[in-house]
Amino acid sequence: MSPNTVVDIPDIADIHLARVRIDDWTRITPVLNDPGLDQELGCILYCKCETLQRTGAFKFRGASNAISRLREDGIEGDVATHSSGNHGAALALAAKLDQRKAHVVMPDNSVPMKIESVRRYGGIVHFCAPTQESREEELAKLVEDGKIPIPPYDHADIIAGQGTAALEFIQEVPTLEQIITPVGGGGLISGTAIAVRNAGLQVYGVEPEGAAETVASLEQGERIESWTPDTIADGLRAIVGVRNFTIIRDRVKQVFTVSDEDIRRAMYLFWQELRLVIEPSSATVIAAIRNHQEVFASKKVGAIISGGNIEPGAWQSMTNWNAGRGEF
Amino acid sequence: MSPNTVVDIPDIADIHLARVRIDDWTRITPVLNDPGLDQELGCILYCKCETLQRTGAFKFRGASNAISRLREDGIEGDVATHSSGNHGAALALAAKLDQRKAHVVMPDNSVPMKIESVRRYGGIVHFCAPTQESREEELAKLVEDGKIPIPPYDHADIIAGQGTAALEFIQEVPTLEQIITPVGGGGLISGTAIAVRNAGLQVYGVEPEGAAETVASLEQGERIESWTPDTIADGLRAIVGVRNFTIIRDRVKQVFTVSDEDIRRAMYLFWQELRLVIEPSSATVIAAIRNHQEVFASKKVGAIISGGNIEPGAWQSMTNWNAGRGEF
Repeated sequence: MSPNTVVDIPDIADIHLARVRIDDWTRITPVLNDPGLDQELGCILYCKCETLQRTGAFKFRGASNAISRLREDGIEGDVATHSSGNHGAALALAAKLDQRKAHVVMPDNSVPMKIESVRRYGGIVHFCAPTQESREEELAKLVEDGKIPIPPYDHADIIAGQGTAALEFIQEVPTLEQIITPVGGGGLISGTAIAVRNAGLQVYGVEPEGAAETVASLEQGERIESWTPDTIADGLRAIVGVRNFTIIRDRVKQVFTVSDEDIRRAMYLFWQELRLVIEPSSATVIAAIRNHQEVFASKKVGAIISGGNIEPGAWQSMTNWNAGRGEF
Repeated sequence: MSPNTVVDIPDIADIHLARVRIDDWTRITPVLNDPGLDQELGCILYCKCETLQRTGAFKFRGASNAISRLREDGIEGDVATHSSGNHGAALALAAKLDQRKAHVVMPDNSVPMKIESVRRYGGIVHFCAPTQESREEELAKLVEDGKIPIPPYDHADIIAGQGTAALEFIQEVPTLEQIITPVGGGGLISGTAIAVRNAGLQVYGVEPEGAAETVASLEQGERIESWTPDTIADGLRAIVGVRNFTIIRDRVKQVFTVSDEDIRRAMYLFWQELRLVIEPSSATVIAAIRNHQEVFASKKVGAIISGGNIEPGAWQSMTNWNAGRGEF
C-alpha cells in the first residue's frame, strides 16, 4: 500500500512506514524489568516507558506521524485538535517541529500542567466544557475557520503512529507472550493490536471503572456515544473512537476495568519499585495485572506505560502515602 | 591483575572485572538525550539515568561488586556500613541477594523514605548523630561485633563498581567529549575518572556549596577531614575519602560548586524536559552545566544522573513551582 493511500484502518505496513517517518523526532523509549515488581505481580513484566517519550507520553508518536503525513502530501497550514492534554502537547511539539501552529481544545478541568505543557510547546489553548460534545463543537469551529483537524485517536495516521511503540517493544523483547495498554479513546490499544498481529501475542486493554464505556460498548456489541467520565485517570476520560472500537472488538482479547483505588496503589507500587512517577492512566495496566493473576501469572507480559505527565505534588496527594510509615 | 589482589586504588581492569561480576544483578540504565534540554543548556547532553538503577541509585553497582568479591573470596558473614541512605539501601539489597544481612548506620536526620528503603530490602538500621565522627564511631562498634565493614566510597571494590556506570556510558555513546558526576564521598567520580582514562574525556565533578570540602581540599592541596554540611543534597553530605581525594586530585579536570537554589531550579528543569523526578544530588550536574557554558558549550557532555530517591511531595516542596503559572 502506498503511504498516500487514504484508508480507514491502518495495517501493519502503515506502522512500519510510520516508524521510519517519525524516527528523527521520537525517542526509542527504554524497556525496564524489575525483579521486585515481578515478585509483587507474579509475572515477568517488561515496561515500555513511554513516560520518557518526548512530551512525556506515547501521544507524540501519533502526532508526529500525522504531521509528517501532511508534509509528505504537501498540505500546508495550522492544525487543530481536542485533548485532555497529552495529545495536545504532542501535537503542539510536532507542529512546531514542522513550522506550524497547533490549536488545542481542552476541557476547562484539564490538569494545569498539561495546559502549561501545550503552551510551552507553542500550542494555542481553547477551553471548552468537560464533555465530548463540547470538545467536538469547539473543534468544529476551528475547522470551519480553516485549521486542519488532527483528531486525538480516531484517525488512521494517529493509530499507525501509536502502534510504533508496540513495534519497537516486540523487537526489543521478542519473547513477549502478552501485551497490555490503557484504553481511553483507543489510539494506543488499536495501534498495538495491529502492530503485534503477526507476533502471536495476546492483547489486553484496561479502562478505569469510571470511564468504562469501551467495556460497556463491547458488552452491548455497539459503540456507546455518550458517557460522563468520573476517574482520576484524566488521560482516559474520552469516548472510544469508531475505528478504534472496531479494532478492539476484532483483535483485543479482553478489556479489564480497575478502580481509582487500584490505580492509586499501582502508582505507588511502580514508584516504590522503579522510582518512576507515572500518571494515573499509566498505572491502570499495573493494577489490572495485579488484579488478574489468573491471566498473567508466570507469563512474559509487556506493559506500555503510557505517560508521566503528572505534577509530583499531585502524585503525592493521589497516592496519599505516609512517608516513613510505608502505608496508605 | 588477579581479582583477588588487594589494592588501594583500582585500575581500569578492575572496572571491567566488576562489570562482569555484577552483570546479573544490575540494570544497564538508559541514556537519554532531549533536544529541549540541549537548547536550554547549550550543549549536546546525554544523561545516564542511574535513577533507574535498582534501589534507585548508582550505589547498587559498588555494593554489588563488594558483596560479590566477598563471595568469590569465600568470606561469609553479615556486613555493615554507614550511609545517608542510597549506599545503605544498595548494600541491603546486594547482601540480601547473597543471603546476608546488612547493618546500616544512618544519621538521624536521614530522609524518611531512605530509611524505609533500607528496611524494605531487609537492612537493619542503626541511627547516629549527623556527623562524620558519629557515623564512624557507630560503624566501628558493629565491626567490633564481627560485621564485615563495607565503606560507602573509600574502598577499591566500591570505586570499581561505581566506575561501571561510566564504562557502560562510553560504550553507549562513544563520541562523548566530557563527563560530569556529583561528588559526595567521591566513589562515583573516582570510578568514573578511572573508567574513562583511555577514552580521552575531560572529567568534571560538582559539589553543593554547603558541602564543598573537596573543592576546599583541592585548593589547600590536602584532604580536609571535618566539615559540617549544609545543603539540600542529602546524598552529598559526606567527606571525600582518602583514595577518592587522590584520584580526584590526579585525574579530574575541575570540581564546580553550585548553590541549593541552582539545584532546585535544575531539578525542576529536568522534570520539565524529561519528566523524571531526580533527587537534589543528581541535579547538581545539570546546575553546573547551566552555570558554566564557557566549559560545556556545544560539547557532547555525558552527565551521570546519580539517583532518584526523593519523595515526590518533597520534590514539589523543594522546587516550589507554582502549578499552571510556570514559575518559581
